[in-house]
Amino acid sequence: MRRMGFEELRERIERVLVRLGEPPERAALGARLTAETDRDGVRTHGIARLPRFAGWIADGLVHPGNTPEAVARFGAVERWRGHRGPGNLAAHAAMARAMELADEHGLGMVGLADTSHWMRGGTYGWQAAEAGYAALCWTNTLPNLPPWGAKSPALGNNPLVIAVPRTVEGASAPVVLDMAMSQFSYGTLAAYAARGQALPVPGGYDEQGATTTDAAAIERTQRALPVGFWKGAGLSFVLDVLAATLTGGLATHDLPPDPAKEVGQSQVFVAIAPGKLASVEDKSMEEMSRTVDAAIAALHAAEPVEPGRPARYPGEGVLRTREESLRLGVGVEEAVWESFVKLESSLV
Amino acid sequence: MRRMGFEELRERIERVLVRLGEPPERAALGARLTAETDRDGVRTHGIARLPRFAGWIADGLVHPGNTPEAVARFGAVERWRGHRGPGNLAAHAAMARAMELADEHGLGMVGLADTSHWMRGGTYGWQAAEAGYAALCWTNTLPNLPPWGAKSPALGNNPLVIAVPRTVEGASAPVVLDMAMSQFSYGTLAAYAARGQALPVPGGYDEQGATTTDAAAIERTQRALPVGFWKGAGLSFVLDVLAATLTGGLATHDLPPDPAKEVGQSQVFVAIAPGKLASVEDKSMEEMSRTVDAAIAALHAAEPVEPGRPARYPGEGVLRTREESLRLGVGVEEAVWESFVKLESSLV
Repeated sequence: MRRMGFEELRERIERVLVRLGEPPERAALGARLTAETDRDGVRTHGIARLPRFAGWIADGLVHPGNTPEAVARFGAVERWRGHRGPGNLAAHAAMARAMELADEHGLGMVGLADTSHWMRGGTYGWQAAEAGYAALCWTNTLPNLPPWGAKSPALGNNPLVIAVPRTVEGASAPVVLDMAMSQFSYGTLAAYAARGQALPVPGGYDEQGATTTDAAAIERTQRALPVGFWKGAGLSFVLDVLAATLTGGLATHDLPPDPAKEVGQSQVFVAIAPGKLASVEDKSMEEMSRTVDAAIAALHAAEPVEPGRPARYPGEGVLRTREESLRLGVGVEEAVWESFVKLESSLV
Repeated sequence: MRRMGFEELRERIERVLVRLGEPPERAALGARLTAETDRDGVRTHGIARLPRFAGWIADGLVHPGNTPEAVARFGAVERWRGHRGPGNLAAHAAMARAMELADEHGLGMVGLADTSHWMRGGTYGWQAAEAGYAALCWTNTLPNLPPWGAKSPALGNNPLVIAVPRTVEGASAPVVLDMAMSQFSYGTLAAYAARGQALPVPGGYDEQGATTTDAAAIERTQRALPVGFWKGAGLSFVLDVLAATLTGGLATHDLPPDPAKEVGQSQVFVAIAPGKLASVEDKSMEEMSRTVDAAIAALHAAEPVEPGRPARYPGEGVLRTREESLRLGVGVEEAVWESFVKLESSLV
């Protein structure tokens, strides 16, 4: 793994995005979001995804110049169409608008249909929480997960993001959950299979129909496990129908089952402005942060399985990796970097 | 298991609630919600819970005459205090208010602090969806689940409910997910242990620190598994801090760790009025139901593990049990009925 300066990484991504057809000011935002994803250690969804993104553009599935458009509004709710522009830019704009609606109404929601892959879901949770908003957002995906009791994929892994703002000594230190509904992503399964390493917990089924920690077997059967078996399968389904219903967009079963062709997702962005209510009750955001602090302290106080390794809250690892990335440079896997450089030179 | 007429069951519960001190019109609602819980087959949370509810009242923890009160409002968001009245009545009122706010703003949220156990969470999802609203709601609970990487309970199982409205031939047939963050409830573990039956999937840890399907061993260690291991643990934590922050109420670590003393929970109710947006876009609720129908059809079309047994959507089993209960009578376990009759006679 190499270490790169954040700004150098961001600039090189920006040049690639401009060459892919994104207008300059939008490419700057797209590059920042992508570089931040690697900075935060979510390496599967940062520059590692750019070759696939370039493929979507080359195939005419994603239109780099298209911007999302509001098509309906009622009160604190808006419906947008993404027109299959870059999904991370559309999602960022949708969350920003949900935050404006929350300023006006206490909470706001944007339903975004006909968009494309939002890359790292956590991005929009951090976006909201660092600006002082609580947020929930989720996307549907192509069918990549069998329902409970079935063998063929009919559910998406539909990432769900929930963010709670918090400040520590004036700096933002939110709690941000970013979870897909599969126990392991296919990217993670591939990494374990390549290392010949057993998964820490069962992640799917082998050819005999038994649950297994053998990642390669799960890659062969394509029967990954939903989180919590029937429970995550149910959560995945309800997030999908809620996204399709609220946005008027496509559901998982409408999306092409090939990641190289995945476009047209439906996404929901909800922002809540706790400060607005707090001001009514004359409570400061600082007091609300102390509520979160106390919950974190209780979590850290739970007796660890391995002495000296306390349980972590969602987002805690990200903050540590971020600090390390800014101090030592952003870590990028060699193979990922080679693919990026190859993409870069193909666009000169 | 005996079968009882729904109306007889409801009336007998109502008399008990009046004798416990609930005002008559509120006892009528409480009895309906409780009887509907048994009617829908969620037998752990219906009349089986009434002896514990009576205990909370006897101990002065729940005040049967207390009603919730709005203490702050900003736009589409309200904060309520439950004043430790009956939790199911407070939750029902909070969801009803969230629906009113959604009529006005497209979506609405009520944060309810200082309440008591809401009994069956699904109740408020069905309440909203049967009235044509999408809804999300959740509650925190006492600490009953170890965080991932820890041995001692520091998380609640924090049930989460998500409901999507749908009509079939004019009748309501929504999708309603009602899931706690533990893979199995302690009630379910006790039932498996009593039957000496292995759990269908690992549900916690044994004394050696290995995951196990032995329910009795999990009862001994009190180390139940969160759904999806680290993922459900993260989801539980973020739901707790969001509930405590948005309501200004107690977090899981503030709640007494004894179910007999559990009171003061924080809960969040979000209702979305999809019909309002639909009317702007000139789309009918009927069209939105067809979106859900198509997703259900795709789920049912997935190749089943056992031929002839297709995967189910959240709420599908409830609708089947409800139909059976109304046709044959509501099923009540003999031991549960005996406890109910004992409670009834103790209150004469």
